[in-house]
Amino acid sequence: MTEDSNPITYSRRFPTIEDVARLAGVSTATVSRSLNSPARVREATRQAVEAAVKELGYTPNFGGQALASNRTNTVGAIIPTMENAIFARAIQALQETLAARNVTLLVATSQYSPAREEDQIRTLLARGVDGVVLIGSERPASAYELLDARGVPFVILWSAPANTPHVTIGFDNASAAAGVALRVVEMGHRRIAVISGITRDNDRAQARVAGIVAVLENAGIPIHPAYLTECPYSLNDGEAAAIRLLTGTDRPTAIICGNDVLAAGALRGARILGIDVPGELSITGFDDIELATAVYPPLATVRVPHRRMGAAAGDCLMRWIVEGKRPESITLPTEFMDRESLGKLRNT
Amino acid sequence: MTEDSNPITYSRRFPTIEDVARLAGVSTATVSRSLNSPARVREATRQAVEAAVKELGYTPNFGGQALASNRTNTVGAIIPTMENAIFARAIQALQETLAARNVTLLVATSQYSPAREEDQIRTLLARGVDGVVLIGSERPASAYELLDARGVPFVILWSAPANTPHVTIGFDNASAAAGVALRVVEMGHRRIAVISGITRDNDRAQARVAGIVAVLENAGIPIHPAYLTECPYSLNDGEAAAIRLLTGTDRPTAIICGNDVLAAGALRGARILGIDVPGELSITGFDDIELATAVYPPLATVRVPHRRMGAAAGDCLMRWIVEGKRPESITLPTEFMDRESLGKLRNT
Repeated sequence: MTEDSNPITYSRRFPTIEDVARLAGVSTATVSRSLNSPARVREATRQAVEAAVKELGYTPNFGGQALASNRTNTVGAIIPTMENAIFARAIQALQETLAARNVTLLVATSQYSPAREEDQIRTLLARGVDGVVLIGSERPASAYELLDARGVPFVILWSAPANTPHVTIGFDNASAAAGVALRVVEMGHRRIAVISGITRDNDRAQARVAGIVAVLENAGIPIHPAYLTECPYSLNDGEAAAIRLLTGTDRPTAIICGNDVLAAGALRGARILGIDVPGELSITGFDDIELATAVYPPLATVRVPHRRMGAAAGDCLMRWIVEGKRPESITLPTEFMDRESLGKLRNT
Repeated sequence: MTEDSNPITYSRRFPTIEDVARLAGVSTATVSRSLNSPARVREATRQAVEAAVKELGYTPNFGGQALASNRTNTVGAIIPTMENAIFARAIQALQETLAARNVTLLVATSQYSPAREEDQIRTLLARGVDGVVLIGSERPASAYELLDARGVPFVILWSAPANTPHVTIGFDNASAAAGVALRVVEMGHRRIAVISGITRDNDRAQARVAGIVAVLENAGIPIHPAYLTECPYSLNDGEAAAIRLLTGTDRPTAIICGNDVLAAGALRGARILGIDVPGELSITGFDDIELATAVYPPLATVRVPHRRMGAAAGDCLMRWIVEGKRPESITLPTEFMDRESLGKLRNT
C-alpha cells in the first residue's frame, strides 16, 4: 500500500460527538472543547480527538460556530483541470482534512487560463471563503493583489519556487524532472526527446523542461530543437506528438514526457507504429497517477506527494484561518518510480 | 408549512440583513453588531439574530451586483468523486456552458456519502448558489427537502428514472448495461461474471446490475452468486476482484464491469495471471472515459454522453434560473463501443 492508498469507509450512520468521545476515550465536553478551543486542552488529548474525528469522518453540526468566529467554514480551491484526475488525489486529501474540521471544500477549474482563474478567485472571495488553495506560482500580480486586499489566507500547491513571498506546499519540479533525465541518460540513451505540457503560464511545466535540459547539457548530449516539443496534457496530444517524433529522421530512443497522460499517449503512439516499449523506445512520465500503472508496460515516472500536499494544505490553511498564524512553506520529496517503460538502450 | 410561516424563508430572493433584522425583531445595526462583535450584544439578542440567520440562510459580504439581480452568478455541483475523472468531461462541459453566461461553477465531492452530500447541499445553499447539479437520483428525502425549501433550481445527471418528480438529464443505465450483456452473450459466452461498483446508495450501479441480470436470465444463463461481485470503483479493487474470480473454480470467460476503472483493473488482474484478453477472457467497461483507450487491449464499453449531459444541464439550469421556467427531463442515448477487449468465446 502506498501513501496514496485510499481507505474508503462505507459506514452509513453519520458519526456523532458521542462516537468521537468513545473512540478518543474522553468525554463529549472534552471533544467539544478540543474542537472549539484547542489551546485549552492538552496536546495529547487534542491529537486523540483529531484522530478520532478523522477516522470517523465526524462533522459537527452547522450553526453558531461559524457565526461566532465570522467564518463561513468553506475553503475554495482552483485547479487547472479535472481531466485525467491529475489533481484528484491531492484535492481528495485536502477535502478529507477540511471535512474533519467541519469545513466544506468548493473547487473551481480554470482550464489553465490565468484570466479565468482570476475571475474564480474573485467569485470565491465574494462567496466568503475562509481560505483559498491554488496550483502553481505563476499568475498575474493582479490575482495576488485580489487575495492580499481581502487578507484571505491562501496556499499554493505543486511548486516550490526559491523566491516567493507566498506560502507554498509543493515539490521541486526541476530537480524531480532532472532525476528522470539522469536515469534515462544512465540507461545509455543519447537520442532523447521531450514532450512537455504547454509551458506558457505554467511554472511547473517550465521547471520540468529546465531540469531535463540542464541534465542533457551537462551530459554533453545535443538537444535538437525538433526533439523539444510541447502540447496540451491529453492522451491524444501525447500520441500525436510521439508519432511526429517517431516518424521523423533520427528517431529518438527515449521520450521524456511532462506528465503521465502525455506518456500514456506516447505509449499508444508507439503501439500504433509497432515500436516496442521498452525494447526499441523508452518512455517516462511524471505524477504517478493511477493511469501510470493502468497502461502496459507500466510507466517509469515521478511520484508526486499528492495526498501529503493536500493534507498539509488543509492543516496549514486551517491553522492560519483559526489561529491567524501564517505557516511556513513546505517542500516535500518526490520519488522516482522505476518501471518497465524505461529500459537500457539496445544496439540498433 | 403552516399559514403563518415566514414567506421570506421560502423566497428565492437572497436574504438581506433587513430580512434578518425583521425576523429577529431588532435593528440592522444590531444584526451587524451581533455578527461582527457578538460580545457587545446581550446573549438573548445574539441568539435571536443567530436563529434568524440560520433560518434564512443569510450570508454577509455579497457583492452589490448580485444582490441587485438577486443572483450570485454561481452554480454548485456535487459529484461523488474526482478520482479517475469519471465525471470530469461532463463537469467541464457544464462549466463551459456556465462560463459563457459569466456564471462560475463550484464543485464539491461527496465520496459517494449521502450524509456528506447533504452537508454540501446545505453549504452550497448557504453560499447562495443560483442552482445545483447532482449526480444520480437516490438520496435521503431530507436532501430533497432542503432544496425544495429554498426553491433553488436543481437538475440530476447520470440517471433517468421513470418515476421521479425531479428534472433529470441522463441516460438509461439498465438498458445500456443490458446492451453490453447482450453483446457478451452473442459472442458465445456462458460463464459470465460481473464486477459492479458498490450498489448501496447508487442507483446507477443498481440499474446496471439489474440490466445485466435481466439479459442473462432471459438467455437462460445461470448466474452463480460468486459471479456477482461488487467493490469500490478503483483500479486496485477491480484488479483484486478479477483475480478472485479468475482463480476460483469455473473460471469465467467474460467479465462485465460496472465501469471502465474496474475493467482496467480487471485487465491488469488478467495480465498478472497470464490470462490473454480477449483470447481467453473478455472484459467490458462502462463510461468510455479516456482510460478505456489508454489501456491495452482497448476496452469494449458504453459511451456515456458526458459532454451532452453537462452542456444540457448548464442550458436547462440557466433557463430555469433566468426565466423561471422549469425544464423537461431529458434522456440521452448511449452507444456501445465495440473494441478489442471483447472477443468470441474460443473452445477451451
